[in-house]
Amino acid sequence: MTLRRRLYLTLEPTEKGGLPERIFEAFLIIIIILNIGAIVLDSVQEMHRDYQTFFYILETVSIVLFSCEYVLRIYSIVENPKYADPVKGRLRFMIRPMAIIDLLSFLPFYLAFLPLDLRVLRIFRLMVVFRLFKIARYLHALKIFRRVIADRKEQLVLSFIFILFILVLISFAMFYVEKDNPDPKNPFTSIPATMWWGIATLTTVGYGDMVPATPLGKTLGGLFAIAGVGLLALPAGILSSGFYELLHKEIKPEPKKCPHCGKDIHDHN
Amino acid sequence: MTLRRRLYLTLEPTEKGGLPERIFEAFLIIIIILNIGAIVLDSVQEMHRDYQTFFYILETVSIVLFSCEYVLRIYSIVENPKYADPVKGRLRFMIRPMAIIDLLSFLPFYLAFLPLDLRVLRIFRLMVVFRLFKIARYLHALKIFRRVIADRKEQLVLSFIFILFILVLISFAMFYVEKDNPDPKNPFTSIPATMWWGIATLTTVGYGDMVPATPLGKTLGGLFAIAGVGLLALPAGILSSGFYELLHKEIKPEPKKCPHCGKDIHDHN
Amino acid sequence: MTLRRRLYLTLEPTEKGGLPERIFEAFLIIIIILNIGAIVLDSVQEMHRDYQTFFYILETVSIVLFSCEYVLRIYSIVENPKYADPVKGRLRFMIRPMAIIDLLSFLPFYLAFLPLDLRVLRIFRLMVVFRLFKIARYLHALKIFRRVIADRKEQLVLSFIFILFILVLISFAMFYVEKDNPDPKNPFTSIPATMWWGIATLTTVGYGDMVPATPLGKTLGGLFAIAGVGLLALPAGILSSGFYELLHKEIKPEPKKCPHCGKDIHDHN
Amino acid sequence: MTLRRRLYLTLEPTEKGGLPERIFEAFLIIIIILNIGAIVLDSVQEMHRDYQTFFYILETVSIVLFSCEYVLRIYSIVENPKYADPVKGRLRFMIRPMAIIDLLSFLPFYLAFLPLDLRVLRIFRLMVVFRLFKIARYLHALKIFRRVIADRKEQLVLSFIFILFILVLISFAMFYVEKDNPDPKNPFTSIPATMWWGIATLTTVGYGDMVPATPLGKTLGGLFAIAGVGLLALPAGILSSGFYELLHKEIKPEPKKCPHCGKDIHDHN
Repeated sequence: MTLRRRLYLTLEPTEKGGLPERIFEAFLIIIIILNIGAIVLDSVQEMHRDYQTFFYILETVSIVLFSCEYVLRIYSIVENPKYADPVKGRLRFMIRPMAIIDLLSFLPFYLAFLPLDLRVLRIFRLMVVFRLFKIARYLHALKIFRRVIADRKEQLVLSFIFILFILVLISFAMFYVEKDNPDPKNPFTSIPATMWWGIATLTTVGYGDMVPATPLGKTLGGLFAIAGVGLLALPAGILSSGFYELLHKEIKPEPKKCPHCGKDIHDHN
Repeated sequence: MTLRRRLYLTLEPTEKGGLPERIFEAFLIIIIILNIGAIVLDSVQEMHRDYQTFFYILETVSIVLFSCEYVLRIYSIVENPKYADPVKGRLRFMIRPMAIIDLLSFLPFYLAFLPLDLRVLRIFRLMVVFRLFKIARYLHALKIFRRVIADRKEQLVLSFIFILFILVLISFAMFYVEKDNPDPKNPFTSIPATMWWGIATLTTVGYGDMVPATPLGKTLGGLFAIAGVGLLALPAGILSSGFYELLHKEIKPEPKKCPHCGKDIHDHN
Repeated sequence: MTLRRRLYLTLEPTEKGGLPERIFEAFLIIIIILNIGAIVLDSVQEMHRDYQTFFYILETVSIVLFSCEYVLRIYSIVENPKYADPVKGRLRFMIRPMAIIDLLSFLPFYLAFLPLDLRVLRIFRLMVVFRLFKIARYLHALKIFRRVIADRKEQLVLSFIFILFILVLISFAMFYVEKDNPDPKNPFTSIPATMWWGIATLTTVGYGDMVPATPLGKTLGGLFAIAGVGLLALPAGILSSGFYELLHKEIKPEPKKCPHCGKDIHDHN
Repeated sequence: MTLRRRLYLTLEPTEKGGLPERIFEAFLIIIIILNIGAIVLDSVQEMHRDYQTFFYILETVSIVLFSCEYVLRIYSIVENPKYADPVKGRLRFMIRPMAIIDLLSFLPFYLAFLPLDLRVLRIFRLMVVFRLFKIARYLHALKIFRRVIADRKEQLVLSFIFILFILVLISFAMFYVEKDNPDPKNPFTSIPATMWWGIATLTTVGYGDMVPATPLGKTLGGLFAIAGVGLLALPAGILSSGFYELLHKEIKPEPKKCPHCGKDIHDHN
């Protein structure tokens, strides 16, 4: 086996790998989790003050590791028959969402060395979030959720449009009802502002930073809150049933046979 | 084909139209969405100050378009066998809820030119909401939700009565428990005011603008909150199962066979 | 038919009565709803000031009506074979929960004429709530909810005990974690006070009047909030499935037969 | 029957015991509930002031009882064939989670007499919570919940990881969006602080102590709230369906018959 082939087999996360592949995978997951933990803790001012250097070293080491992993994966991917062509195959592999997420998880770090505008750099700083997505690839467990969402994509998009429709409708009505309330602290200053109230009410989050003050506004708000519970039951029900179905499909695919006569028991329903 | 017939076929939204019908429909949806977007943004003071003229032009153009569409639809509807009579048919078409929504979506604009009381005008301003309903007609996707709601109308009305009953019951009890709290900021000033708390609690929105202060009030409030979760599970479950059933009916129309004679069992329900 | 028999048939609410019974029932429901409406509005200070006399007259008329209905029902109930004995039958009828609710819905009104302590009177004032329960008897629609609750009584009680157990557990932990927070406004002053936070969190109502302030308290609080969602899914799921089953039992009790050979299609599951 | 055997049969909680066992069990449950009640009420300052001695006596008596029960159970457990060995069997019994809970429910009381640091004592004070767990053993009703949680352990852990993943993702995004808001009261000071907002939003608790202030933050927050409802439907649905299945398995154990040979199909799963 060539070195490239060995590299390919080690780097590519598969569901049933040997011991070295599993160790490498666990190692990478730990590095990513440590990296995320460092970013989380570094955001706390006291932590940043005291452990700044430690966090910086951890980030640098991780970035070097992520970069090496990325380069080696691009190098070895031609071992995969799907991406066999040295140029086209590698390019096709690189433009896959997962490969782009990998790239974005370390690229912003190098961009900091370029003479760029600070504003642009701040946006790149946000890309740190992609390091989180990187772990999603290694957690095979998350696949089931991705599959449920993929299975029910159409219905979820539909529900989302429907919720958006109701949200705009509710916010229109509420804004025209509440806007004439002369209270100088009246928070219903515009339709977009009212939509923030609308989402908090429809989802039953109810922060309480915006509350209708007029009797008509409260009556409408009450009706919307009740409607909201029914409304959000839709996407919840869709996801829930999607999950349930997937689990049962995976658990019960067994063709039933009568243990006495050995014939198949056809499902007559 | 006469011009009137061509107009009829283009204007009437059908689920499977040709390319020109689809383009016209998409064009109308975009105009409505732009119009709604303009109303939403115009409600923000800074936006109104800076882009007032732009929003006014967009609204005027849309209104002219909506008016033309309405007039042409009334003109061409006699091509539909159901509304063939030139006078009676057109009138019958005009009094349909959908046609009234269409009319109300642009009529208030013209009423602004009449020498009317400002108060009346303000109410007409609310009719802008009908432009939102106008889009509902074009979004075939929303049909499934309308069907679920229609299918389960009876049970939903029942649940609503039940929730209202529990709400009044809870608010009665809570008001008599909390009203003697001498705190000058005691928000439980009347039963209708307490109902606002009741809705926020039963729906688990929980704005936090009204919270019982007495120990008995807190005990009752806690029990009501727990009951509320169970209670609102009813309409949520009804809608959820209605949606689920509709989806499965559409997906699984498999002809059943009798296990005795092997013939198809036509669904007599 | 004797007058007593006619009275019995008119007064006893049955699901399929003739026109006079239905009119009488509708009349009583309207009176109760008006009465409840009057109590609700009378609790608003401005309303009480302006319409006090009107509300008082409405209440007096209703009370007289409720009293007459009660007396006549006791008088005529012996027509029912179950309560045929003039003394024992009437007594047995009077101690039924529904009859006690009827009695309590007007009795406190008369007690106001007795020279009683004001404190006792205030408690009797709370019994106005029984007028609301009175309507429950006439709304046949509410029966389905009563049946679901009766069907799942055991499981609901179980869930309630379980929720109570978790609530006490969470409040114990949270109190010992938060009580040492030196903030003078620290709301976690005792375990019962912490239970108010616990209920608001477990039910996801989240009023926001009590929020943990220490890092450990926030961590625990977050875990409890996530656990709460799963926890309250239990009674919600129980009620929801109970409702669903009841509806399906009522809709599909038909023993299926093959339309070709006429034999029963045994359910092989 | 020896005394030891009698003790064993009385102390070991079994689902079908005779009258003396049931009386003993009920007595112990009442003692535990009284003990928990005393701890709850003792945490209220006014109660502590007035009834301190009473609570102390109740606690001391309970502790002595719990201790005796524990010692006698250890003494008599060798009657159980599983723990027959006088030394090894007793040790094996003592390291069971339930026995450790029993031990921890009274041990901290005795530790208070040792010359220990106050800090350590405070932690031991928290162990009072184990007295609550002690009751869990006697409430056979709670078994069904334990079984549902055990049945779905894997899926629940999965959901928990998924929710944690989404939570970190949302908090990352929200922190970088809100941290530049110059408001001195801006509560989004760090990622861990933002996670508190994230949990309150994802679970729809919505305390309202932290609310995004920037337009982009509000837009993101709204999307997260809608996503949260769908997301938490997963563990809720898992528990709900687990509970439902367990109930139906227990209710419907009907022996299946093969439709070909008519013999019973023993459930081989």
